[in-house]
Amino acid sequence: MKKTTQLKQLITSQNLEFLMEAHHGLSAKIVEEAGFKGIWASGLSISAGMGIRDNNEASWTQVLDVLEFMSDATSIPILLDGDTGYGNFNNARRLVAKLEQRNIAGVCIEDKLFPKTNSFIDGETQALADIDEFCGKIRAMKDTQSDEDFVVVARIEALIAGLGLKEALLRGEAYRKAGADAVLIHSHRSDASEIEAFMKEWAGRLPVVIVPTQYYKTPTKRFAELGISVAIWANHNLRASIEAMQKLSKLIYREENLVNAESGIASLNEVFRLQGVDELKEAEKKYLPAKNNAGSDLS
Amino acid sequence: MKKTTQLKQLITSQNLEFLMEAHHGLSAKIVEEAGFKGIWASGLSISAGMGIRDNNEASWTQVLDVLEFMSDATSIPILLDGDTGYGNFNNARRLVAKLEQRNIAGVCIEDKLFPKTNSFIDGETQALADIDEFCGKIRAMKDTQSDEDFVVVARIEALIAGLGLKEALLRGEAYRKAGADAVLIHSHRSDASEIEAFMKEWAGRLPVVIVPTQYYKTPTKRFAELGISVAIWANHNLRASIEAMQKLSKLIYREENLVNAESGIASLNEVFRLQGVDELKEAEKKYLPAKNNAGSDLS
Amino acid sequence: MKKTTQLKQLITSQNLEFLMEAHHGLSAKIVEEAGFKGIWASGLSISAGMGIRDNNEASWTQVLDVLEFMSDATSIPILLDGDTGYGNFNNARRLVAKLEQRNIAGVCIEDKLFPKTNSFIDGETQALADIDEFCGKIRAMKDTQSDEDFVVVARIEALIAGLGLKEALLRGEAYRKAGADAVLIHSHRSDASEIEAFMKEWAGRLPVVIVPTQYYKTPTKRFAELGISVAIWANHNLRASIEAMQKLSKLIYREENLVNAESGIASLNEVFRLQGVDELKEAEKKYLPAKNNAGSDLS
Amino acid sequence: MKKTTQLKQLITSQNLEFLMEAHHGLSAKIVEEAGFKGIWASGLSISAGMGIRDNNEASWTQVLDVLEFMSDATSIPILLDGDTGYGNFNNARRLVAKLEQRNIAGVCIEDKLFPKTNSFIDGETQALADIDEFCGKIRAMKDTQSDEDFVVVARIEALIAGLGLKEALLRGEAYRKAGADAVLIHSHRSDASEIEAFMKEWAGRLPVVIVPTQYYKTPTKRFAELGISVAIWANHNLRASIEAMQKLSKLIYREENLVNAESGIASLNEVFRLQGVDELKEAEKKYLPAKNNAGSDLS
Repeated sequence: MKKTTQLKQLITSQNLEFLMEAHHGLSAKIVEEAGFKGIWASGLSISAGMGIRDNNEASWTQVLDVLEFMSDATSIPILLDGDTGYGNFNNARRLVAKLEQRNIAGVCIEDKLFPKTNSFIDGETQALADIDEFCGKIRAMKDTQSDEDFVVVARIEALIAGLGLKEALLRGEAYRKAGADAVLIHSHRSDASEIEAFMKEWAGRLPVVIVPTQYYKTPTKRFAELGISVAIWANHNLRASIEAMQKLSKLIYREENLVNAESGIASLNEVFRLQGVDELKEAEKKYLPAKNNAGSDLS
Repeated sequence: MKKTTQLKQLITSQNLEFLMEAHHGLSAKIVEEAGFKGIWASGLSISAGMGIRDNNEASWTQVLDVLEFMSDATSIPILLDGDTGYGNFNNARRLVAKLEQRNIAGVCIEDKLFPKTNSFIDGETQALADIDEFCGKIRAMKDTQSDEDFVVVARIEALIAGLGLKEALLRGEAYRKAGADAVLIHSHRSDASEIEAFMKEWAGRLPVVIVPTQYYKTPTKRFAELGISVAIWANHNLRASIEAMQKLSKLIYREENLVNAESGIASLNEVFRLQGVDELKEAEKKYLPAKNNAGSDLS
Repeated sequence: MKKTTQLKQLITSQNLEFLMEAHHGLSAKIVEEAGFKGIWASGLSISAGMGIRDNNEASWTQVLDVLEFMSDATSIPILLDGDTGYGNFNNARRLVAKLEQRNIAGVCIEDKLFPKTNSFIDGETQALADIDEFCGKIRAMKDTQSDEDFVVVARIEALIAGLGLKEALLRGEAYRKAGADAVLIHSHRSDASEIEAFMKEWAGRLPVVIVPTQYYKTPTKRFAELGISVAIWANHNLRASIEAMQKLSKLIYREENLVNAESGIASLNEVFRLQGVDELKEAEKKYLPAKNNAGSDLS
Repeated sequence: MKKTTQLKQLITSQNLEFLMEAHHGLSAKIVEEAGFKGIWASGLSISAGMGIRDNNEASWTQVLDVLEFMSDATSIPILLDGDTGYGNFNNARRLVAKLEQRNIAGVCIEDKLFPKTNSFIDGETQALADIDEFCGKIRAMKDTQSDEDFVVVARIEALIAGLGLKEALLRGEAYRKAGADAVLIHSHRSDASEIEAFMKEWAGRLPVVIVPTQYYKTPTKRFAELGISVAIWANHNLRASIEAMQKLSKLIYREENLVNAESGIASLNEVFRLQGVDELKEAEKKYLPAKNNAGSDLS
């Protein structure tokens, strides 16, 4: 099944579905192997992986290059955390065309201004996008996609910006009319009260996506009861990798030896397996001259 | 101190020094924060991070793009695992020019053929480069560098290829005469006997770099006694991150909840700290109009 | 019609067809507007446009980036002059996958070694690829393509290398059996005698492509009589642009004034037309808020 | 002399100096060979060369990639037409760091909003940047440069936007105080009256750059009398190349033959000369084994 169709089905499923964060080809493959049906290509994680900030410091084509590796390494769909679409409607529709080429199944855009600021940084608030301008962007994106199942999710930042439920609903409704396939309602409270209030008023007009990074203690079945379509575990592979690399680097630095380091980490053969070394060995047998026992010798 | 000079000093230091693997901007920063004086930009790790194989599947400019993020995120020198130099002498000298522009302090090239195969994959052997051709490549690289402290390390694959100590020494001597700043002698035995034999005959003609991935049980002080200049911990951050992400992804997939996931991973604030969020906040105060409380609002 | 199908039909047409060189998005569009049915993405021209040499100085992904702009700007098919496939069979099959994603209709690979040398530079000859190795590459490429009409042309350099007609025919036959959709027989003689001899013996086993850069004085109808399928005008847009820019730059430098320069060059409005400015104006009306008279104002 | 110092001297010269447009490595080299002392890397031309529009359709790193080829091909300084700096102050200061790495000598930013619209398209006007915001951007750029001679030119769009001389002067003065090295005053009138009025009031407070695309009939000595520092011939190589390629492509399409095409275009040897083929031949003699007569044979 096409990746776009897979993602469309996740979004419109009657069950609560999950997307797991990845930020490079390797983590994407790990997400798939863990059993997840879809991948969240987190803007925060991708930028952090690059060693830069989540403020559009990477160009949109640098993000695209990462996405291409992620998609090539996996067979489940990827939903891109596409910030504001990296500019106006014209940039956003160009993005859609390029995502489709790279076999990315959908993109989530948020109603903030370019360049963006991460929604969770203390003390940062920013003006939201003009509703009409943002709706025009959604329409342009939907008009551009060539695959009817490509998914555009409209992320509502009204609660984050402190503008309240009414504004969130007004924006959600406008984005729905503009053609969004789902809305993502974002909240930075440590409980799900804002989400609950939104879901009650929203009343299933379109599928709803959430990112329970801050209110993660809410039982997941509560999300199902509320009628949430998709919950995104948004940055946890990145954070697991940070903890692991920091601990290991400090250990090896201190001990100047690998003996205690080797035990808790993946083997070299596991690295090779993840890279698909076996497929290349088979291909070499098939495509290289028999006399040539050296896999990669051109001469 | 310039990064090139830092690396040159590591290579020529009387003490045994260490380089720790990194494969993207984030891991590079973690290596620096752990206390290491230098970074090994591993070809295996960078390709695995991308989700591809260590067979020059990534183009050399795609590798360069990763290196640029790594260098920008750190202040310690990076030694690139530069495979064969990605082609002949002309490709290799172009590489040097581009590495210098990106503030990469040095490159290690190996005497194999393009496209390369990882030295540790079972059952793979490949013909080595012609000695004269490889020496010409070294000379072209050394003639190209504009910074006198830029480091070119010549990696000897003779032991890996089963050609024995004599060939390894003959190649090492040729590479020294061609202008290499150090040799890297590679072995895939699980003990250091080959390294010991090489060091005895080599007799300190040039600094020697080793990669004790397979013979890691050898006590580090033994490397110092042998007169090794630099030991490289070559792929361990990658492998730590794999283990951590696999465990976490499986945990979250199984539990459909973050409660048990949150405890053992880096906090969101730690992510922001690594990204340097504070510097941007300060810069916004300095460079954005006071009336404009929204950091990234262009209007 | 799909671009691949368009190219397949050109290659298999009963008539002599033509491909015209382009080297960037702009020249590609100009080729289409002139009436041509297909584009030759010349390795020489693309590298010269970048200001570098035709010796794989650009990475294969840098070439891919240029091709993407070329394909996006046009609706006729592009045949890439893909050098040797940029490495071994594995690099070549990865190339095919990436070309298909960028909507490039086909690729021509030549039986030389990586990195390549241009076939027309005086005094340069190089060893050819091993026939079996090259056939394995062709098979890998054909097995990789997902679109059955994607075209792989095998270029025979035997005549350029001075190995004679017999070797050229032997190679052509091997490449045919390996699955090539056409062969390109290359000659640097100033007459078509080598081509004529080849065509006589070849006897229509597969479509034949030629590049009459050196034997351009041969009447085109002669190519048709010989049963040639496609003739490529291989580098002429590049060369026209060089002559024009050199003359104009010298004129403006000398006169320090534009008065005599303006007359013989495209107008600014013609530049805007080629860029498709009108489409964006229409789109702005459709997607930007009415109150917002500033096309690209995000606020 | 460093390229930055060369450009700084052009900007601050007592004489009227000239920059000539280039849009890729090839045109940059042609500009240098014609005798010009500096290159204008036009945003319009670079985007048109790519086959896209001058509305930030290319990402800033795609532009950077073109600039790198341009700088590598030449020894004279390049001033980048950097649109709005591709975002806010943070994007602009990152741009400066990356330009310095690629050996680009300076950048001109304009006081418009991202994404930009070309100043010469009929019927387009757009709101200008907030003065304080733009001044903060200039300060951030000047604080970021590591080379004291790197040049930041502030382009004033007030006249284009119909806001009049007073606004233009007010902006120019603010940009001067913010640290700009020069101002570029832009006008789309077909005579130089606006420029004359500006120069009179400006009174030499900072060097002034102009782009006489529309008022090109004004004698150049008039610009010198007014005290203009630099005049930019902004898009003429692009336009010359368009005219030449259109004519040639139509000719070859019509005649299906190269006989009449070959006469008015650069020879293949001229292409090779521009690419620097001779340097590589010399290098091959120096760095390739003598027995190896094949320049690029790796075996």
